[in-house]
Amino acid sequence: YKRCPDRRMPNKKVLKNIRLIIEYNGARYCGWQAQPNAKKKSIQAVIEKALFGIIREKVKLIASGRTDAGVHALAQVANFQTANPIPLNKLKLGLNSLLPKDIKISRIEKASRSFHSRFSSKSKLYRYTILNRGHSSPLLEGKVLFYPHKLDVGLMRRESGVLLGRHDFSSFCASLGKEKNPVKRIKKLNIFRRGDFIYIDIEADGFLYNMIRNIVGTLIDVGRGRLANGRLKEILLSKDRRLAGQTVLPGGLCLLKVKY
Amino acid sequence: YKRCPDRRMPNKKVLKNIRLIIEYNGARYCGWQAQPNAKKKSIQAVIEKALFGIIREKVKLIASGRTDAGVHALAQVANFQTANPIPLNKLKLGLNSLLPKDIKISRIEKASRSFHSRFSSKSKLYRYTILNRGHSSPLLEGKVLFYPHKLDVGLMRRESGVLLGRHDFSSFCASLGKEKNPVKRIKKLNIFRRGDFIYIDIEADGFLYNMIRNIVGTLIDVGRGRLANGRLKEILLSKDRRLAGQTVLPGGLCLLKVKY
Repeated sequence: YKRCPDRRMPNKKVLKNIRLIIEYNGARYCGWQAQPNAKKKSIQAVIEKALFGIIREKVKLIASGRTDAGVHALAQVANFQTANPIPLNKLKLGLNSLLPKDIKISRIEKASRSFHSRFSSKSKLYRYTILNRGHSSPLLEGKVLFYPHKLDVGLMRRESGVLLGRHDFSSFCASLGKEKNPVKRIKKLNIFRRGDFIYIDIEADGFLYNMIRNIVGTLIDVGRGRLANGRLKEILLSKDRRLAGQTVLPGGLCLLKVKY
Repeated sequence: YKRCPDRRMPNKKVLKNIRLIIEYNGARYCGWQAQPNAKKKSIQAVIEKALFGIIREKVKLIASGRTDAGVHALAQVANFQTANPIPLNKLKLGLNSLLPKDIKISRIEKASRSFHSRFSSKSKLYRYTILNRGHSSPLLEGKVLFYPHKLDVGLMRRESGVLLGRHDFSSFCASLGKEKNPVKRIKKLNIFRRGDFIYIDIEADGFLYNMIRNIVGTLIDVGRGRLANGRLKEILLSKDRRLAGQTVLPGGLCLLKVKY
């Protein structure tokens, strides 16, 4: 006697690995991950709560990486395991109807069993946007850094070359104690101007806490002519956070893409 | 005896006509102009107050036209008269330091004595933006209309041709009683898709209250296939507001340019 496989009931015990692509405006949140003593909610907690609202399970969402408080994402990637048989298009509609306006699921799909949003990722691409003109923009408030002084983008591009490749980025890390490995590999670093906007695109296999915002602050010092040629290299090699520039505001930063 | 003109003190009684180019996010305001019983401030009042803070004069700002509550502007134009001798670059910096983040002066310049922001204008160009995909955008919240259903942009473009030129637009006017002349001339009407976005650009010599948002609502009905071919023309000719579509939300609308 053989049961016909087509007529079997769906096996509810089989765990599926589900991948979410998420867009969010980070302004109201303490970042992707819950922080002790944070007054704001975490994006992770808000999505996990919405998931509970649909599948009635407490799941743990694994993201490609944390984004800091106030940082945005166009396409954060996260995954979770569930045995719930809900069709994925229904799950997406349900989640988006429960989620607030500043967090939405743009795609949802079945992932392979071994897929892990963080460990499977090869690199992440972030963009930092500077509005470089005489007045700030009401329509882009909270999405760009307004910087009214002249910046030499060519100089920033040339000097930034030393950051490419594998380095100990301790000089650009806010809280070194927490980081196990300060060595990261920057694969791409593109700095370019389009009209009044300066874009700084950084792709790396990982980032330290506040690393991009500290690098951008230091690159702004370069563009202003405040750092001598070669000084950026010295700062990198010093591994001394006190030598680097200030941490620019989080709203200018956006996680564009996670590569696998 | 002749006084040397170069050594005269500046004549403080000579009125200058000053033109402002203004960018604003309309979300927090009742519109350009103060409204009776409005709970929100008007953009005009906020700028006039900032002007008072700098030149210590109560001036009346004349804009190219009112924008409704919640509507944005990339380049609204307004002018006022003053005898104050303050240099214009200082006035701009001073105003922008007093203005809130969602209203900024992008340019300030001396206008000819006869310049009148409203009566001198030849046309105004507005853009309405529809986000046409399965999920709304956290990063564009309040700047676009999220519309998840398929829209036939080619059909919208073909049918919209009847709106071009001089017409009585009463069918698309929210409060006809207030409008002296419902006849306006639409000079350009471009409807096009770029990726997930549908842009509706309308240039006219004037607009009735809610006119663009009612036209867009009706064009969405066209794009959905809800109106038979030729029906838009019938609606226009009927001069009956009840036949047109719904008023779409104001956040998708932005005053791009005033032409003189």
